[in-house]
Amino acid sequence: MSKVNLAIVGAGLVGGDFIDQVASYNTRNPSTPLNVISISKSRTALLSQDFAPISLTNWRDALASATTAAPSPAELAQWLSTSPLPVILVDNTSSPDMADAYPLFASKKIHIATPNKKAFSSSNELFQKIQAAAKESGALIYHEASVGAGLPVISTLNDLVATGDRVTKIEGIFSGTLSYIFNEWSPSAGPGTAAFSDVVRVAKEKGYTEPDPRDDLNGLDVARKLTILARLSGLEIESPTSFPVHSLIPSALESATSGDEFLAGLPAHDSEIAQLRTDAESKGQVIRFVGSIDVASKSVAVKLAAFEKSHPFASLKGSDNIISFYTERYGASPLIVQGAGAGAAVTAMGVLADCLKIAGRVLSTLHPNTHLEVLNPGCVYVTVHPVRFADTLDTNSGLKRPSSRLCTA
Amino acid sequence: MSKVNLAIVGAGLVGGDFIDQVASYNTRNPSTPLNVISISKSRTALLSQDFAPISLTNWRDALASATTAAPSPAELAQWLSTSPLPVILVDNTSSPDMADAYPLFASKKIHIATPNKKAFSSSNELFQKIQAAAKESGALIYHEASVGAGLPVISTLNDLVATGDRVTKIEGIFSGTLSYIFNEWSPSAGPGTAAFSDVVRVAKEKGYTEPDPRDDLNGLDVARKLTILARLSGLEIESPTSFPVHSLIPSALESATSGDEFLAGLPAHDSEIAQLRTDAESKGQVIRFVGSIDVASKSVAVKLAAFEKSHPFASLKGSDNIISFYTERYGASPLIVQGAGAGAAVTAMGVLADCLKIAGRVLSTLHPNTHLEVLNPGCVYVTVHPVRFADTLDTNSGLKRPSSRLCTA
Repeated sequence: MSKVNLAIVGAGLVGGDFIDQVASYNTRNPSTPLNVISISKSRTALLSQDFAPISLTNWRDALASATTAAPSPAELAQWLSTSPLPVILVDNTSSPDMADAYPLFASKKIHIATPNKKAFSSSNELFQKIQAAAKESGALIYHEASVGAGLPVISTLNDLVATGDRVTKIEGIFSGTLSYIFNEWSPSAGPGTAAFSDVVRVAKEKGYTEPDPRDDLNGLDVARKLTILARLSGLEIESPTSFPVHSLIPSALESATSGDEFLAGLPAHDSEIAQLRTDAESKGQVIRFVGSIDVASKSVAVKLAAFEKSHPFASLKGSDNIISFYTERYGASPLIVQGAGAGAAVTAMGVLADCLKIAGRVLSTLHPNTHLEVLNPGCVYVTVHPVRFADTLDTNSGLKRPSSRLCTA
Repeated sequence: MSKVNLAIVGAGLVGGDFIDQVASYNTRNPSTPLNVISISKSRTALLSQDFAPISLTNWRDALASATTAAPSPAELAQWLSTSPLPVILVDNTSSPDMADAYPLFASKKIHIATPNKKAFSSSNELFQKIQAAAKESGALIYHEASVGAGLPVISTLNDLVATGDRVTKIEGIFSGTLSYIFNEWSPSAGPGTAAFSDVVRVAKEKGYTEPDPRDDLNGLDVARKLTILARLSGLEIESPTSFPVHSLIPSALESATSGDEFLAGLPAHDSEIAQLRTDAESKGQVIRFVGSIDVASKSVAVKLAAFEKSHPFASLKGSDNIISFYTERYGASPLIVQGAGAGAAVTAMGVLADCLKIAGRVLSTLHPNTHLEVLNPGCVYVTVHPVRFADTLDTNSGLKRPSSRLCTA
């Protein structure tokens, strides 16, 4: 009786796990399922034109055989605006085109749950447009997994701000790839002896880096995450390149024509970064690649920094993320969240948790026995169990038309 | 236009901070305030019989001058059931009598936000009754601050479970007092040289312990928190004394007639606990007082344990709490939350964040321009901005009575 529709865009690593998690959720919660009404890949899609839920049993086969053309963002927004139930757009892509369409989706009160960082970490103008559209329409936009996958980062920051705390500083290790690389290369159990280029090469072989490791080493992914957190902390950030972002790519290798060429040239630069490690170790410190926001001075930076071996950043395990929030209330020592910040399952989980929060906010049982469903603008079904009847509201004039339809539940 | 009523019980350290935070929140959010309709102390109360919001300017003076007798839980439940707006009972006490009344409040769909551990960590029977009553009525019960104050612990655990993750183990340091004591007595920068009794005495002088430190050292507070987490992880726990709880009170001092007598007798037992520290330090470890849940073996325990100096528990600062969640998805290394787990401001913040989450779930804008308020069972006001009109539902028969009243917004 209480349902929302999900329109899913992207069925890759994260999207596929997300759909499987939704299927499991629906099995555990048969009376409050999340109805999947569309699954879009880049060219084709499964689309349930009449909004009947798509069966998720063998969804991969169904999607592989789909011949319907994938709707453009504008077409999707238009179709979803006619959804009889509240609808959540689940954007499991990293597409800037999807991000650019968020103001349109929001203006039609299509809710959004996404790990896609683009909408919130590109131009300030786009970010403000999305906020304004959502505020106007009441659309709910959740993006926990845009920073730290399923770790409670965005929600924690939002709760601190909403309850009146003042963030003074945020500092953290936001890239699982770079976390692994620096934990290996500059271990707290020290001394570190491996060459930086060797550690990067092994990381790539283990699948911890992008196919071209420069996409991790340029620091831009961390810059985007910092942009999101800084904006949620109240700072105006023009773009993720409007503050210092230390790139770990030696300038001589920036023009390497492939990831392999880059890796082949990296050893020549090992000694330079090794000197940083030696200096740090002489002081009992380790080197980490961190993002840092200082609110009072409005300074945001992505950089290498040295930390005492007793610092939580020094004892990080594997490819974990760690985020420290310093606030007025968490003043003496910060609020810290730590754990796997990447990976399909934990990312999908963050998106699913967001969908459940949206669902909890857009459906309410008014009081025992009474449920409300808005079937389409102007038509409200109110169920006083077990009878469901409808009232028609003329949303233009605000006058209720006298016809009332009595229907069976 | 979108408001909830708050009935606040308890205006002590946490309750007072909570009310101040609500006042600030309302100043920041004048169009969506939290309406305080009552503030109860143990004997007297401020009660707004007609549910008009109580002014929070100088609320302490008003409360000090109040002469209305504080309602009993049952009287409060009866009155709140007539609230025209959704109402949240904010229980800022640690009263078992309030906890015993939660099934009654929940049955009347009075939502609850509380740091009070008692309802969720006493008998399994009470816990189940509360769950059942809330499920039946749709009442929302949030208690983030029952474990770790404002740290995202309960919400994180609930999100993991709701999204289908399986908790395998939870381990943590749940008492700020005992965190401080063991961080001081068994430091990771070691060796520890202070006598245990000296550390306890200093902690009491600094205000970090209860007036009688045995109320911290008996481990029961930690046991209650573990009970809550174990139950939310799916384990059936009969009570907080149904599993091993290591007490740091030497048996000879259990019968000491006062906290001071206890402290005077404690030095005689220093060497016994010091031996544990010496043994640990010989292995490069520290001693911590932890709570631990192993789901597969259904074992729950509060105990002393030794940890490597590189373990996150070893580098804990001050009186911070730390909670590690090991799950199927967070398998290689746990999801960790860390920070101040006690204190009036951060506890109040956790309760306020819960109120905002409840408010977000019980009020919904149905679609642009349409807002719904249930004034009392049977009467629904639907506002199609700017006109507000009412429909009367006969909740017994499910038939809508034909009269519709058109009112100004």
